[in-house]
Amino acid sequence: MDAAALAERVRAGDVRALAKVISMVENGESGVRSVIKDLAPMVAGARVIGLTGAPGAGKSTVTSALVKALRARGERAAVLAVDPSSPFSGGALLGDRVRMQEHATDPGVFIRSMGSRGQLGGLAAATPQAIRVLDAAGFGVILIETVGVGQAEVEIAAAADTTALLVVPGMGDAVQAAKAGVLEVADVLVVNKADRPETQRTVRDLRSMIALSAGRWRPPVVTTVATSGEGVDELVRQLDRHWAWLAESGERARQRLARARDEVSALAFGAVRARLEVPDELAARVADGRLGPHEAAEELLASVGL
Amino acid sequence: MDAAALAERVRAGDVRALAKVISMVENGESGVRSVIKDLAPMVAGARVIGLTGAPGAGKSTVTSALVKALRARGERAAVLAVDPSSPFSGGALLGDRVRMQEHATDPGVFIRSMGSRGQLGGLAAATPQAIRVLDAAGFGVILIETVGVGQAEVEIAAAADTTALLVVPGMGDAVQAAKAGVLEVADVLVVNKADRPETQRTVRDLRSMIALSAGRWRPPVVTTVATSGEGVDELVRQLDRHWAWLAESGERARQRLARARDEVSALAFGAVRARLEVPDELAARVADGRLGPHEAAEELLASVGL
Repeated sequence: MDAAALAERVRAGDVRALAKVISMVENGESGVRSVIKDLAPMVAGARVIGLTGAPGAGKSTVTSALVKALRARGERAAVLAVDPSSPFSGGALLGDRVRMQEHATDPGVFIRSMGSRGQLGGLAAATPQAIRVLDAAGFGVILIETVGVGQAEVEIAAAADTTALLVVPGMGDAVQAAKAGVLEVADVLVVNKADRPETQRTVRDLRSMIALSAGRWRPPVVTTVATSGEGVDELVRQLDRHWAWLAESGERARQRLARARDEVSALAFGAVRARLEVPDELAARVADGRLGPHEAAEELLASVGL
Repeated sequence: MDAAALAERVRAGDVRALAKVISMVENGESGVRSVIKDLAPMVAGARVIGLTGAPGAGKSTVTSALVKALRARGERAAVLAVDPSSPFSGGALLGDRVRMQEHATDPGVFIRSMGSRGQLGGLAAATPQAIRVLDAAGFGVILIETVGVGQAEVEIAAAADTTALLVVPGMGDAVQAAKAGVLEVADVLVVNKADRPETQRTVRDLRSMIALSAGRWRPPVVTTVATSGEGVDELVRQLDRHWAWLAESGERARQRLARARDEVSALAFGAVRARLEVPDELAARVADGRLGPHEAAEELLASVGL
């Protein structure tokens, strides 16, 4: 099927065409470029919510509960489960998709996992492209679920309007998140599995950790028991409150400009990376000390006209 | 002090000059380039050992015990504690340096921590440069200590001849490491705090995890109680065994060529990144849908002559 036909079918709500285009994004296929161009007029500016947290925090259960709440008020929701953990492993999130099965037959819900294989510029380039495609396909809310708390998650958070960080009671997750800089980018903090002991203490500790941050938005701390649905309404309310604040404060426009900048930058970077292969002969001269690394970098850049 | 004088003092074993040059590397100061060039003839090909593991695995204690063992046989050792965790936090390793104080007055030992601030190309560019400087200053063994198990640690491992992964008894650390691809790059596995229960089980589990890997080198699993020194001799023996294997197998030359390539690539990349700033006007056109991201990336590349 050619690009124009694919774009047309995505536009018409064909789920298989949509899945095909996301795969093209994931694999870094060059053909996806004209599909994205054809879809451009349909991009409506969907709301993007990032959910991150260590393995076991209950991300899939919370995501599923959020999807249910969004569907109840008539919104179409897409879930993109992104696994940045490693080029070696991959597929870690697939098992969790079982928890999403209650939405499997609902045409207003689309669920996909995505790894980093192939894509030039990695997930930093692939995620915004996948968001564009889902947006053009008519999903008003896009949930980006990432496993783990690290720099990769911070990068993916940069693609979201609102980032929710999930932790379980006990301070391990929060401390790890703080070390990785994830706490600084979280807009809403969720203590899930809040029927466990230590919940109130974790809430207090999180509040004191974020009290030190200087941003204009003070992240609320929400407690949930996602398996029973407890606290999910309050979580939705806080996510909505942040979304409204983004518009009122002018932050939404600023963020979207920054996202566009990051997206262009990642694509340009990916293209350059492909051209900056270090020739064996050049690496050998550096390895045996005949040439300094800076001089070699200069020679390499000159050889591609930079 | 000019570059030539700094290089001369580093060569002469001046610790303050050495610390100054490492700071220049860390901050990405352009002046460091001629210092590194002046030091090039002194680079002797030091042995680089990477140590990584989750917080609490006992990296500093193991590092300190290794330094002691290396000093006992007359080798000069430098420790570079690299913190890739976040551009936001930083300094996480400073507290641990207290454990290194037994070596504080030994001129055959140099200890420094380094973060990612400033450096173009990040730690992937800064670490090899710091290694060059320490090598030229006459340290035959350079220990690179990194906190955490993630992609950043995998990148730093790429700068080492031998990478040791530290875990504590219980499978949490090992599973995290496996997910992040760190297990695949570890040459020696160390179960530290081996006076705890579950040690033998962890050793068995690690052995079965690595049995699946297809490399020519089968990573040994060593147990240590670094606080008492137990197992440290065996750890040194296994590190030596890997170092000898690298030479015999031809792997050392191959790795060093790969390292030179990575170093040149990171520097070239850093230089390009600085030139690929996305102008506001271009980002705005992408943000409001007037221009596709791929077309914008093309425009940006064309504007810098690519």
